[in-house]
Amino acid sequence: MKIIIVGATGTMGQYLSIALEKEHEVIRVASKGGDIAADITSTISIENMFKMAGSFDALISTAGPTYVGPWSKLDDTEFRKGVEGKMMGQINLVLIGQRYINPKGSFTLVTGALAEEPQRNFANASAANGAVEGFVRAAAIELENGIRINAVSPTVIEDSPQYFPYFPGEIPTTMRELEFAFRKSLFGAHTGQIIKTW
Amino acid sequence: MKIIIVGATGTMGQYLSIALEKEHEVIRVASKGGDIAADITSTISIENMFKMAGSFDALISTAGPTYVGPWSKLDDTEFRKGVEGKMMGQINLVLIGQRYINPKGSFTLVTGALAEEPQRNFANASAANGAVEGFVRAAAIELENGIRINAVSPTVIEDSPQYFPYFPGEIPTTMRELEFAFRKSLFGAHTGQIIKTW
Ligand SMILES: NC(=O)c1ccc[n+]([C@@H]2O[C@H](COP(=O)([O-])OP(=O)(O)OC[C@H]3O[C@@H](n4cnc5c(N)ncnc54)[C@H](OP(=O)(O)O)[C@@H]3O)[C@@H](O)[C@H]2O)c1
Ligand SMILES: NC(=O)c1ccc[n+]([C@@H]2O[C@H](COP(=O)([O-])OP(=O)(O)OC[C@H]3O[C@@H](n4cnc5c(N)ncnc54)[C@H](OP(=O)(O)O)[C@@H]3O)[C@@H](O)[C@H]2O)c1
Repeated sequence: MKIIIVGATGTMGQYLSIALEKEHEVIRVASKGGDIAADITSTISIENMFKMAGSFDALISTAGPTYVGPWSKLDDTEFRKGVEGKMMGQINLVLIGQRYINPKGSFTLVTGALAEEPQRNFANASAANGAVEGFVRAAAIELENGIRINAVSPTVIEDSPQYFPYFPGEIPTTMRELEFAFRKSLFGAHTGQIIKTW
Repeated sequence: MKIIIVGATGTMGQYLSIALEKEHEVIRVASKGGDIAADITSTISIENMFKMAGSFDALISTAGPTYVGPWSKLDDTEFRKGVEGKMMGQINLVLIGQRYINPKGSFTLVTGALAEEPQRNFANASAANGAVEGFVRAAAIELENGIRINAVSPTVIEDSPQYFPYFPGEIPTTMRELEFAFRKSLFGAHTGQIIKTW
């Protein structure tokens, strides 16, 4: 299977790239580094990335910048970080990528427990996650040629201990659980599902 | 209670205005008509609206434009209708309005069943609804001075028969159910809740 991983240089993306490249062709995408450089906040950059990658069987996204910080500083401007990044960035990967993906291919986006289990400082991610989850359910009934779409929703992950203090009471998602959630979407028949690890 | 209704000239807004003005002071807001004209896609216009309205006890929003139409035409540009309208429009009403609302006041936004129960042609609304619901849960743990926030999620409403063909199998929300859902948020102690009528 030819799998594009967008966000491949990040904490999740590196782990998933190493796990999947044992048996699959993996194309690493990030805004810098990786096999192809692309900025998901630009539709032109996304389009160019797909042209360079050629047809593919699956796209995983673990790229999703959001504003993290005090509520008192959260205004329209800060909110755009998650709107352009985690929300529209990932949605545009699908709206554009549907014209490049092989029949029966799959898209797997990343959201997170914050959609339903908020924590202080993360309202922007809660909104972006909710948007992506609503989109995934809707896209699943619209995509043609057997193309599937799901989201993986982890809570704070094992390999991001710097975030643990912000997630009191959340038992971290192990990297193995994260990998298996992505495997469920990639290799299962699911579509329109939010695959939760919490 | 002094209640601002944004979207007061629409199908839901008119009904709620008439129901609530029997016992409360209602200020009608819409982009044209109403007591105060404001465009929720502009933060400047929202700020001016709050300055004109003065302090208040509750804000209801039933304003939330989205792109409705074929998936094949849904691109980044069309998607912005819901991003700027139903999503950021309503989110900015809260981010800005929190500085004008009275202590123990409440915000009640509108989402819809499409967040979880997609229908063809409405992916933009599914995403915007999901975003607003994620935001409501997060804002509930951040807002100070006892300020509450909820969303009302109806399915297609009784007074919008033009949409019935797009919602096969959905038993329409009656106007009475819609009113009572808003009453639950306005006069109850709930916060961070998605009040569903389906
Ligand atoms: N870490 C957690 O505990 C956790 C838990 C739940 C959900 N999540 C969500 O999962 C996602 C990934 O988390 P992570 O910890 O792996 O993040 P990360 O370590 O910061 O990695 C992010 C990856 O995305 C890429 N990226 C960022 N902005 C981009 C853009 N505009 N265009 C293209 N690529 C871009 C980064 O590459 P460049 O640096 O080159 O841009 C990097 O490869 C985030 O959306 C996060 O909200 C994380
Ligand atoms: N109708 C349904 O069956 C149904 C079911 C579930 C959810 N919903 C959601 O509920 C909301 C209201 O539905 P509705 O049927 O009552 O809508 P509607 O009849 O179209 O009314 C919309 C109201 O919002 C105002 N508005 C629109 N854009 C605005 C803007 N940029 N700034 C300020 N005001 C604006 C309109 O006034 P102007 O014309 O002056 O702009 C009008 O007062 C929508 O978000 C819809 O998605 C509807």
